[in-house]
Amino acid sequence: MQTKIDSCEYQKLLKEYEAYKKSGLSLDMSRGKPSKAQLDLSNGLFDELTSSSCFVGTFDYRNYGALDGIPEAKKLFAELAEVGENEISVLGNSSLNIMYDTLQRAMQFGVLGQEPFNKQGKLKWLCPVPGYDRHFAITELFGFEMINIPMTAEGPDMDLVEEYVKDPTVKGIWCVPKYSNPEGIVYSDEVVRRFAALAPAAKDFRIYWDNAYMIHYVSEEVTLLNLWDEAKARHNEDIVYAFGSTSKITFAGGGVAFMIASEKNLKSLNSLMSLQTIGPNKLNQLAHVRFFKGKEGLMAQMAKHAALMQPKFEAVLTTLSENLTGFARWIEPKGGYFVSVNLENGTAKRTVQLAKEMGVIFTAAGATYPYHHDPDDSNVRIAPSLPEPDELKTAMKVFCVAAKIAYYEKHLNA
Amino acid sequence: MQTKIDSCEYQKLLKEYEAYKKSGLSLDMSRGKPSKAQLDLSNGLFDELTSSSCFVGTFDYRNYGALDGIPEAKKLFAELAEVGENEISVLGNSSLNIMYDTLQRAMQFGVLGQEPFNKQGKLKWLCPVPGYDRHFAITELFGFEMINIPMTAEGPDMDLVEEYVKDPTVKGIWCVPKYSNPEGIVYSDEVVRRFAALAPAAKDFRIYWDNAYMIHYVSEEVTLLNLWDEAKARHNEDIVYAFGSTSKITFAGGGVAFMIASEKNLKSLNSLMSLQTIGPNKLNQLAHVRFFKGKEGLMAQMAKHAALMQPKFEAVLTTLSENLTGFARWIEPKGGYFVSVNLENGTAKRTVQLAKEMGVIFTAAGATYPYHHDPDDSNVRIAPSLPEPDELKTAMKVFCVAAKIAYYEKHLNA
Repeated sequence: MQTKIDSCEYQKLLKEYEAYKKSGLSLDMSRGKPSKAQLDLSNGLFDELTSSSCFVGTFDYRNYGALDGIPEAKKLFAELAEVGENEISVLGNSSLNIMYDTLQRAMQFGVLGQEPFNKQGKLKWLCPVPGYDRHFAITELFGFEMINIPMTAEGPDMDLVEEYVKDPTVKGIWCVPKYSNPEGIVYSDEVVRRFAALAPAAKDFRIYWDNAYMIHYVSEEVTLLNLWDEAKARHNEDIVYAFGSTSKITFAGGGVAFMIASEKNLKSLNSLMSLQTIGPNKLNQLAHVRFFKGKEGLMAQMAKHAALMQPKFEAVLTTLSENLTGFARWIEPKGGYFVSVNLENGTAKRTVQLAKEMGVIFTAAGATYPYHHDPDDSNVRIAPSLPEPDELKTAMKVFCVAAKIAYYEKHLNA
Repeated sequence: MQTKIDSCEYQKLLKEYEAYKKSGLSLDMSRGKPSKAQLDLSNGLFDELTSSSCFVGTFDYRNYGALDGIPEAKKLFAELAEVGENEISVLGNSSLNIMYDTLQRAMQFGVLGQEPFNKQGKLKWLCPVPGYDRHFAITELFGFEMINIPMTAEGPDMDLVEEYVKDPTVKGIWCVPKYSNPEGIVYSDEVVRRFAALAPAAKDFRIYWDNAYMIHYVSEEVTLLNLWDEAKARHNEDIVYAFGSTSKITFAGGGVAFMIASEKNLKSLNSLMSLQTIGPNKLNQLAHVRFFKGKEGLMAQMAKHAALMQPKFEAVLTTLSENLTGFARWIEPKGGYFVSVNLENGTAKRTVQLAKEMGVIFTAAGATYPYHHDPDDSNVRIAPSLPEPDELKTAMKVFCVAAKIAYYEKHLNA
């Protein structure tokens, strides 16, 4: 970006900063939480099961059993994900929990007969950046050396991915393939095909395909090529673990999560899971199945979410466009939960700090990178879903003031 | 037991065996599953949350958060367990899952700063026998050498426990302290006090106190001395992890599970748990809280369970008494889910096999021992909860015929 110095504007910004600081603002834009209006969309779920409901199908859903989910829930989410009903497990309330447990199993017991990761010495993991902080936190906890893979407008830099997987100590990659966290990028067909054809040196390498926003469009429903079909066509489906949930369709923490994998992978994982639990909450699965009835019901629900999210994203993008054009770069996401802004290098932390001083919390700068370290100190993730629209506008104005002050500080001090 | 040989009776038993075999019976007495009538007791739970309910308390229960449970659920189960609200985590639908995850954390990350179990070489675990097969399956999976500790009428043989914990490679013990699985034994005050005073050589030794049947009386509510208070009085509470759930109070798989531990232990465990999940299903916790209202509500529910269970236990005990007196020994449990029968040594497997041939499935002989190996081949666990009373009587008659045939086979062939 070309440096733009305007000392008059800087003085004006400092006055705005002081004014916001005194205004007693207290807003939180840090996490991708659904708003009350979004949660209200699913209140009908509570009316699906009452004391006079029928609870008996394949078995009594109030009793033990169904380790990997009830058949009706498998059918619903298999239809949604366009996979076979024998290629899915429908489990508890959190896809993050499934990912963690799956990786912990690989650490402790190994993948399909390979040595446990715990016994293989220092291992590596590929992390498209910017990405999801909770993914990186898991691989950091398990001691992986995390390797940054830059994101392009098409998805992760596949030349780099293909190069790195030649190293047998590289054991996996985190992907959010659709409306990615935080940039809202949808992986291109070419990127999906290159993932499907990936031939890692490590037999126990897995793509952790976290399709968290699979139907979470905001302005436009974009089609993501089905990795599952592409991988199967190449007899390469064993390298894929895919995940999803209704955390941002129904209730966050009160939804249903699932995992997609080959029958071979699922057989091995379920056999270990059978020692951990007798089964998931089948009643919550049943309520979801009865509430949505089928894929159409899910899509109708997402249209309502989009209607609530769209003006919020627009408010963010308009404010950015009006205030930070020439100062920062961002992608206009067509879906997901975030807007990702790349500020002038070296100013992200300072921007978040200044915004905090004005009473608005943004996701910590660096959070979108492994080890919380953004080498450029440039990226800030904005989560528009939770605040009310007027709060959002205020918060974004604060963000822009903060970003520009940080920009001027850098260049005036240079 | 004195050997009783009566060849006439043996011939008569063989005829009964043939008759049952032809009768097309198909009953399953193998698992401790609640009956339909028991499950119906909790159907009111489904009416607690409807689309017009208030979902907002400390926060919106439909949104993310509350890693270790909602405050109202902590209050309810802390009151039940007589512990502090800061000494409990209320989590997902399965206490087994909590136990597994807690042990997996010890394997991977260690206990309160000690070396991970994974890095400490061959380790040992104490297993009171007979006991719960799923406990033993977990410690077998993690590679512990499991050591049998015989149960007495008062609980585990504490002389042995105290001797074994002098070995720093002994890292834990499984306990079901009240109405134990399978014998229905309630640990005596003396045994609880000796657990509370236990001084293991290993700093990372833990008592896994699975209080699965804490209020699940059948014929008599017996008081178990509160290990928590006893351990705290001795400043020894860090060695206790206690567990419970509503799996057999409300719904099996649709209930709420909890863990009790010292603040120090919980802080460490929750810090690791925060990487695994954003939180449990708070809505199910809320429904439980509103359904029971308090400890009295829980106790009233258990009186209804007891009324349903009592005739079933009586049917089992009466049939045993009428048919196997002198052939086998058993304890009359005052609560829990099982009747444990010790048959003539060397005849348990054969008994279960013969019963199966007559159309009735019992828990596999040996299942109540580590490695599925009952050194005496004597113990069979009977689960009376699921079958209807008339089925139960038939099943028990079949069991007695099978046990006596096995007895005669042993002695006639001797």
